[in-house]
Amino acid sequence: MPTDPVRLTAELIRCPSVTPEDGGAMAILTAELEAAGFTCWRADRGGVANLFARWGDKAHAKSFGFNGHTDVVPVGNRGDWTADPFGAEERDGQLWGRGATDMKSAVAAFAAAAIDHVRETPPDGAIILAITGDEEGPSVDGTRALLDWMSENGEAMSVCLVGEPTCPDEMGEMMKIGRRGSLSAWVTVTGVQGHAAYPHRAKNPCHALARLMDRLASHQLDQGTDHFDASALQVVSLDVGNPATNVIPAEARGLLNIRFNDCHDGASLSKWLRQEAAEVDAAFGTETTLEIKVSGEAFLTPPGPLSDLVARAVEAECGRKPELSTTGGTSDARFIKDHCPVVEFGLVGKTMHQVDERVPLEQITQLKETYRRILVEYFA
Amino acid sequence: MPTDPVRLTAELIRCPSVTPEDGGAMAILTAELEAAGFTCWRADRGGVANLFARWGDKAHAKSFGFNGHTDVVPVGNRGDWTADPFGAEERDGQLWGRGATDMKSAVAAFAAAAIDHVRETPPDGAIILAITGDEEGPSVDGTRALLDWMSENGEAMSVCLVGEPTCPDEMGEMMKIGRRGSLSAWVTVTGVQGHAAYPHRAKNPCHALARLMDRLASHQLDQGTDHFDASALQVVSLDVGNPATNVIPAEARGLLNIRFNDCHDGASLSKWLRQEAAEVDAAFGTETTLEIKVSGEAFLTPPGPLSDLVARAVEAECGRKPELSTTGGTSDARFIKDHCPVVEFGLVGKTMHQVDERVPLEQITQLKETYRRILVEYFA
Ligand SMILES: [Zn+2]
Ligand SMILES: [Zn+2]
Repeated sequence: MPTDPVRLTAELIRCPSVTPEDGGAMAILTAELEAAGFTCWRADRGGVANLFARWGDKAHAKSFGFNGHTDVVPVGNRGDWTADPFGAEERDGQLWGRGATDMKSAVAAFAAAAIDHVRETPPDGAIILAITGDEEGPSVDGTRALLDWMSENGEAMSVCLVGEPTCPDEMGEMMKIGRRGSLSAWVTVTGVQGHAAYPHRAKNPCHALARLMDRLASHQLDQGTDHFDASALQVVSLDVGNPATNVIPAEARGLLNIRFNDCHDGASLSKWLRQEAAEVDAAFGTETTLEIKVSGEAFLTPPGPLSDLVARAVEAECGRKPELSTTGGTSDARFIKDHCPVVEFGLVGKTMHQVDERVPLEQITQLKETYRRILVEYFA
Repeated sequence: MPTDPVRLTAELIRCPSVTPEDGGAMAILTAELEAAGFTCWRADRGGVANLFARWGDKAHAKSFGFNGHTDVVPVGNRGDWTADPFGAEERDGQLWGRGATDMKSAVAAFAAAAIDHVRETPPDGAIILAITGDEEGPSVDGTRALLDWMSENGEAMSVCLVGEPTCPDEMGEMMKIGRRGSLSAWVTVTGVQGHAAYPHRAKNPCHALARLMDRLASHQLDQGTDHFDASALQVVSLDVGNPATNVIPAEARGLLNIRFNDCHDGASLSKWLRQEAAEVDAAFGTETTLEIKVSGEAFLTPPGPLSDLVARAVEAECGRKPELSTTGGTSDARFIKDHCPVVEFGLVGKTMHQVDERVPLEQITQLKETYRRILVEYFA
């Protein structure tokens, strides 16, 4: 009897696994996978539960990997939900709850697909599931810990599919073959405090910060490339916290984020930011420091065998040729790309991270069938 | 025997009159003035003590007024003081304590000068002292309450001298014949919240705010006039309070202050600010609201008989011809200017509002003698 991905999704939704809590999710997956002949290991680190499961020989040259996460973002305003966020209610043909689209359904779908595949058509190769409990949090002890554990234990994936939601509106319309990089910078401008009536005795850091942020936000970083949108910088905060209208403050802070394509990398953008800050400092007599964090470089798995395989399966199951995209936020694919070719395909992300997160039951099944088709063709 | 302004200053400093507390200051002045033949009334309002004292006939066409305040700003970090802020310690030829320069010494000096004058050379005219307990606070129930009370009671000053500290470094170097206006604006830019990875779905209010503030701060409002410095705008705060690097916030706030000369008024500047905001909104698709408060219009008592009189007295007592200035913050002269010609002359303001506020004893006496000389010449 085929494994029901809807049932498994519901069981996972009932685990209150807000990062970094596991809520019992890994135990459910472990039991299910072990019963089908998978061997399971835990690669926990820093209080995060991580599950590594393999069917087939570790030494096999051909291994297909799935990656996903069981942790979810917080519920938000509980009163705004029309369903229990951890209740997995079925209503109006949909399954309701936190993680319904991001991404307990996809974890259930690839687990179910893998189980059915090894039971019905045992492949000449290995199937690996690398499932983490921290993708929504700091992501330090999540998929990175799994990859570290794999390299320590001689485990490898030939290719990997990440099951994050990739479709904006309709099932099957988009897959991802790369992601833009992401850089954040905490900007601190130090001036000289003073009285608003005697500005010549002060150096106003607010003026320098406004100029710097306007310059940065106005700059066109590039025009985009074949597979990437144009890079974009967003100033996301400006903070001084001075309520006194007659006081020029000593310090002004700002926070910005850049989503960048493969025209840039963290180092080149850091250099540009520091240069702009130095020019503004020269004009205002201020001193600006930048604390820069690159949470992921831009990467691309160029269109080829893996993306073709996934796209064919998506088209066959969903009736749509998926767009090969690199849009959106970061995902754990940014870690996996150093390990093997990686692409992403999953559900419609519309309700992810929102109240009343939900997924049509048929899309869970459709996703499982797509993953199953991918395995069939990969091992054919 | 002449009245000792140092003794009287010390007595006032020992009253802990941090706005809006009176701390017993008005009672000390009332006793001193009544003993010299002044009639005293209280024009208290909204919990603020205000003292109106007059010697001479209310109906007299010639009346010289003094204005000042007995309230003081808070002590600040008590541990940084080397003297009791309310102890009025005499040390190194100076009197130490909160209010020593701003402006208990000047209140004591004009009270002592007025008392000596009416005792030794009773004038053909009236001398008025209008002393408030709230100049450092909201200033709503301070000198404004005194002026309201005066108009209700048919009291009038022909001219007025405000005893605020006016000298930057040396005694006698500066008097004020006007003040710049002051306008504050609370700016709120509303955009559309979104994810930093999908900026085209959002409208970033931080970008609009940075642009607006840079435009405003870069604009040269004027070049200054005969008696005024150039007007100047200072952005004093920028506030978003968003710690999430991946979130474009819905709202960004800013606070600015303009010190302006008589090329402008509150209405013309408000119009300019709203116009600039509208242009930025048009460019960014944001919606900006401005909450504007004009705490004082620019005003000038053009050089003439009153300023000449005060300048001559200052030069005779201090050995320096005072500069006729309009620099610095606002003062209660902004209210009095609607009532009669007003100028300001007082101590060196160097330590005002700071820890270890203090005044050389000889400067208190010098200030009293200057005020006395002004009265002598005015009534000559
Ligand atoms: Zn996710
Ligand atoms: Zn003052």
